[in-house]
Amino acid sequence: MNIDMIEAAAGRLKGVVLRTPLLSSPFLDEIAGRRVYVKPECLQHTGSFKFRGGWSAVSALPPEARAQGVIAFSSGNHAQGVALAARRHGAPCVILMPADAPRVKIDNTRALGAEVVLYDRATGDRDAIGAALAEDRGLTLIKPFDEPQVIAGQGTTGLEIAEQAAEAGVTEADVLVCCGGGGLTSGIALALEAKAPGLRARPVEPEGFDDVRRSLISGGIERNNRTSGSLCDAIVTPSPGQITFPIMTRLCGPGIAVTEDEALAAMAQAFSRLHVVLEPGGAVALAAALFHPGAFEGDAVIAVASGGNVDREVFCMALDRFGGA
Amino acid sequence: MNIDMIEAAAGRLKGVVLRTPLLSSPFLDEIAGRRVYVKPECLQHTGSFKFRGGWSAVSALPPEARAQGVIAFSSGNHAQGVALAARRHGAPCVILMPADAPRVKIDNTRALGAEVVLYDRATGDRDAIGAALAEDRGLTLIKPFDEPQVIAGQGTTGLEIAEQAAEAGVTEADVLVCCGGGGLTSGIALALEAKAPGLRARPVEPEGFDDVRRSLISGGIERNNRTSGSLCDAIVTPSPGQITFPIMTRLCGPGIAVTEDEALAAMAQAFSRLHVVLEPGGAVALAAALFHPGAFEGDAVIAVASGGNVDREVFCMALDRFGGA
Repeated sequence: MNIDMIEAAAGRLKGVVLRTPLLSSPFLDEIAGRRVYVKPECLQHTGSFKFRGGWSAVSALPPEARAQGVIAFSSGNHAQGVALAARRHGAPCVILMPADAPRVKIDNTRALGAEVVLYDRATGDRDAIGAALAEDRGLTLIKPFDEPQVIAGQGTTGLEIAEQAAEAGVTEADVLVCCGGGGLTSGIALALEAKAPGLRARPVEPEGFDDVRRSLISGGIERNNRTSGSLCDAIVTPSPGQITFPIMTRLCGPGIAVTEDEALAAMAQAFSRLHVVLEPGGAVALAAALFHPGAFEGDAVIAVASGGNVDREVFCMALDRFGGA
Repeated sequence: MNIDMIEAAAGRLKGVVLRTPLLSSPFLDEIAGRRVYVKPECLQHTGSFKFRGGWSAVSALPPEARAQGVIAFSSGNHAQGVALAARRHGAPCVILMPADAPRVKIDNTRALGAEVVLYDRATGDRDAIGAALAEDRGLTLIKPFDEPQVIAGQGTTGLEIAEQAAEAGVTEADVLVCCGGGGLTSGIALALEAKAPGLRARPVEPEGFDDVRRSLISGGIERNNRTSGSLCDAIVTPSPGQITFPIMTRLCGPGIAVTEDEALAAMAQAFSRLHVVLEPGGAVALAAALFHPGAFEGDAVIAVASGGNVDREVFCMALDRFGGA
C-alpha cells in the first residue's frame, strides 16, 4: 500500500469521478475561529467518496474476474459506489446489506442495478455470508475498507486536497476525515504524506463509536461495544482494519470524537452556509472543525464531508433542531 | 457588451470565485429521458452566481470610486454578492432591500458587513430611492442585471460551462438558465456564442412571472402583472433589461415557464440525487429539464442551478411534498 497505487488509481479514475471543489464560507470561519475548508464528497457520484474506491477496485480486476461479477457488503454508501462502478463496467454485482440500513440506501443500490441481499446486523456474520456467496457464484469480494485497491481509490481524495490546499495557500493544517474502518482516512494520509507533508490527516468519529481514536491511543486494535444505534450509520464499523490501522498509526494525528448533536448541527450549517446536503456520518469532520476548536492548532483546517445520503426526516430534524436559518 | 468583457472579468475573478463543478446523476437522467448536467452555482460564495457579477463590477471600478463605496438593490442574492465583494475590496456598501425579502437574506447581507436599507416593494420606487442614496453619499450604483460589468461577471459561468460540456463530450445542448432580469442568461448566451456555438441558452421562469418568455415571443419588452407573491423571489423582476433583452433576443432559444410545484419537486430531486440545496428560484431550470422533456431536442441538457439561499421551512416543505426520499 503506497502512493504509487494511489496515483495509478487516480489514472483509472480520471474523467470518471468528480473532482469535488473545496468550499468555504466566512460564516463558518467565524464559528470555528479559523479558516475552514470543506471537501464535499457528498457531491461525488452516488453521493459519497465510496464511488472512488469502488471504481478503483472494479477497474483493477482482471477482465475475466470482472465478467464473473463482484460482491460487496456495506451499510449503504460502499454498496452504491460498487454498484455504479460495476454497472458502468458491465459487471454483475451482488450487495449484502444490513436489514436496518436506511431505506434510501437500499432502494438506491437496487436502482443502480445491483442484486441486494439483506442480513441481520446483530446476529449475522457478514464476512461469512459474503464469503459463501462469493464462492458460490465466483464473485470477487470487494471489502469496504481493508482492501488496497479500495484504499487507493479513496486516497485520490487526498491527492485533490493536496493540490487544492496549495491553490488556497494552505500549507500547514489538519485534515479531518469522517472515519469508519479507516479506508478514506488511511488513503488520504498516504496521499498527504507524499504530496503535502504539512497537512496531517486526523480521524473523526461519533462518540461511543470511536474505535479508531481509542486504537490510536492504546496502540492496538480496539473494538466498539455497539455497532448499531447511531445516526452516523455510514461510519459505524466494529474496529479499524488490519491494513488501515498501521497506516493511521504511522501517519495520523490524534482522533476526535463528536456528539450526534454536533453532527446534526454541522449538517444545519452545511445547509445554510455551503448549500450542500450531508448525512450525519458525513458531517462529523465538519462538526469537529466547528465545535472542537481547541483540538487544533494553526489558522486553517480542512474537513472532508464524506457523504450526503440521508433520509429527509433526519435532515429536516437536524434543521429544525439546529437552525440552518 | 461582448466576449472580451467576459474574458476580462474572468481574469479579475480568477482565484476568487469558485469554479463550480458539473454534476449529474443516473436517477435524474432517467426522469428526464436524457442526460442532465447541473451547474450548481448554489455552491458559489454567498450561495449564488451573483458573487460573480458583484466581484466583476466592484473590481472594475476606479480605485477612488471604490473607496467612496457602492450601493445595490436586490431581493437578496445580488445583495450578498455585492456585499462580500465590497468587503473583500475594503469598500463601503449600502444595500437597498425589499422589506419582505427572506429573513435569511437580510441577515446574511448585514453579517457580510453591508448597511441594509429596507423599502416597501409595493409602494417604493427602488430606482429612485437608490439613486438618491447614491448621490447623497457618492456611492456607485451596481445594478442587479442591466449593467455591463455585472453581465460580464455572470457570463463567466458560461465560459466554465463551455469548457466543462466539452470535457463531458456534450457539444450540442440547450443550457437552461433561471432567469430574472436576464443578467445571467445574457452573459451565458454571449459566452456560449463565442466558446460553444452548439450550446444555446434558454431562459426559465416561474409561471405568472414569465416576462422574458413573453418578451421573446412578442419581440418587445413585456412586464409582469405582479412582482411579489412567488416562492421564486430570487428571479422575480418586472421585465427584462434594456441591455439584456437585445442579447437574449439575438442568442436565446424560446423561454420556458414552470410551476412553483415543479420548482419544489426539482429542489427535492436536487436534495436526494445531487446533495445540493437549491432555493425555488434557483431550481426552475432543473425543473424544466426534468419535467418539460418535450421542450428540448437532443440527448443532453445543461441546467444552471443559480442559488441556494432558502429558509429551512420552505426547503423542508419541498421535501415533505415532493419526496427527496
